[in-house]
Amino acid sequence: MGESHIMRGVLAPVVTPFKTDLTPDKQRLIQHCRWLLSQDCGLAVFGTNSEGNSLTMDERFELLDALVEAGLDPKRMMPGTGCCSFLDSVDLSKRAVEHGCGGVLMLPPFYYKDVSDEGIYRNFAEVIERVGDDRLRIYLYHFPQMSAVPFSVDLVGRLLDKFPGIVVGMKDSSGDGANLEAIMKAFPAFAMFAGNEPLLLANMRFGGVGCISATANVNPAAIVGLFDSWENDDADAVQKGLNAVRGAVQQFPLIPAMKMMISHFRGDAEWNRLRPPLVELGEADANKLIADLDALDFEMPRLGD
Amino acid sequence: MGESHIMRGVLAPVVTPFKTDLTPDKQRLIQHCRWLLSQDCGLAVFGTNSEGNSLTMDERFELLDALVEAGLDPKRMMPGTGCCSFLDSVDLSKRAVEHGCGGVLMLPPFYYKDVSDEGIYRNFAEVIERVGDDRLRIYLYHFPQMSAVPFSVDLVGRLLDKFPGIVVGMKDSSGDGANLEAIMKAFPAFAMFAGNEPLLLANMRFGGVGCISATANVNPAAIVGLFDSWENDDADAVQKGLNAVRGAVQQFPLIPAMKMMISHFRGDAEWNRLRPPLVELGEADANKLIADLDALDFEMPRLGD
Repeated sequence: MGESHIMRGVLAPVVTPFKTDLTPDKQRLIQHCRWLLSQDCGLAVFGTNSEGNSLTMDERFELLDALVEAGLDPKRMMPGTGCCSFLDSVDLSKRAVEHGCGGVLMLPPFYYKDVSDEGIYRNFAEVIERVGDDRLRIYLYHFPQMSAVPFSVDLVGRLLDKFPGIVVGMKDSSGDGANLEAIMKAFPAFAMFAGNEPLLLANMRFGGVGCISATANVNPAAIVGLFDSWENDDADAVQKGLNAVRGAVQQFPLIPAMKMMISHFRGDAEWNRLRPPLVELGEADANKLIADLDALDFEMPRLGD
Repeated sequence: MGESHIMRGVLAPVVTPFKTDLTPDKQRLIQHCRWLLSQDCGLAVFGTNSEGNSLTMDERFELLDALVEAGLDPKRMMPGTGCCSFLDSVDLSKRAVEHGCGGVLMLPPFYYKDVSDEGIYRNFAEVIERVGDDRLRIYLYHFPQMSAVPFSVDLVGRLLDKFPGIVVGMKDSSGDGANLEAIMKAFPAFAMFAGNEPLLLANMRFGGVGCISATANVNPAAIVGLFDSWENDDADAVQKGLNAVRGAVQQFPLIPAMKMMISHFRGDAEWNRLRPPLVELGEADANKLIADLDALDFEMPRLGD
């Protein structure tokens, strides 16, 4: 398996717009994805920030089909396909492979807690064997704060040994630079994406391949800028600038904050809607977020700019 | 809404048998459910112990249909219908109502953590409004150790106020007698099921209506016995006997332990199979469990006994 099979760069866990009846707004999603690609930002649809697990399986199939049919490049897509039922993970991953997606981002099954490495291993083994396609590329989605089911270094090693070229990388959303470094040291060839851009530079220096960050939904060009120039002398200063924007956003619940930002900067109230159990930002929080972003001279490039 | 609409007694979160290809074994499930009913034990299918969240939606529909078609009494059924996507919860709950199920046991959406009461409230409001049927009876499934999304006393109060006669009760699997007592004191008319039988007697004394306990899959008659006689003088002694069996079982992961017990006492190796991420008990653990149960003179009544 050559380098060319490995995804690199900056991806957005694409936020999902909803209509008033809370069905996914396909047209706005396609528009947003097209804009992200135009900023050289890849598409990690159906991630945490996409409210992916708040979508039914049918909705996920339908949206993935719609994005591909709209002519967006599947090689830049890394849909989330890790479900509680391994059979759902099989079906979604199969569809992603059939569409030629660059990879899939797989959560472990996340309902049962304190499960054994053996149990998680079996989940991935069943999925890989049942998808049964050499084109499958799995990026493990390590997000213990949300899934409450971590990947241990031992487990990662076992999956890499058993499924080389299929299990190829990880998104580490633990926010723990030490974990990221430990995994890169144990598996230097592993394609590691930092889970947010404040760890992008550190991750590149550890030998990583980029980041998949919520904030790439609203600040893609600047994050891609750092990815492109991380070996430059001013990289630390650029990282600092990204961190300031991120800091303003993550004062608030991240997903509502991003939807509010998109709504505000595009002048499109339709974006400011979430599925339960998430709720939109209150007015005071929204005002503070925008004021803080203004103070940083932040602007989100408009569609078509 | 009269008492008659409220479920009472002992229910088993019915374990789900799987064939070698890990598809659900419908015939063994029907047989086990029929046996549980014969022991006067109700059927909380698709719960935690059922590996309910490891089943696809289609599998859940198919199994529920099969149980009803097999002639088992839907009034004794309380299927788990709480999913990560509220639309899945709507569809499953609707099917349960159409079948005349006595109630549904609803987890909150469990992927997102640290969500607000408002967000969980909206989830239940959407489900109730979209099911749109007065026959719906919701029992809230409080299991913070597994869902990592608790129900606060405030939230329970708000749901009871807004949806009286629809939100009627709770299964409290926190294992925390103080929580159970606090909720019963706040809402005396609430139909409270203890989440395991060691809290059955305490729950009845607080004004509760029974228990929904994993171990009812293997020890139903004895647990029902305490429910029937909890006001008797010997109730504390009976409770102590139940606790001893429970203690032996819960030395080990509960779901694998129960499947191993059913497999052992029925002489049917087919029962000893789980879906990932759960794994069967190892041989040494299995031997110790059976030895400890033997020391307690425990026997699981055979099918048809």
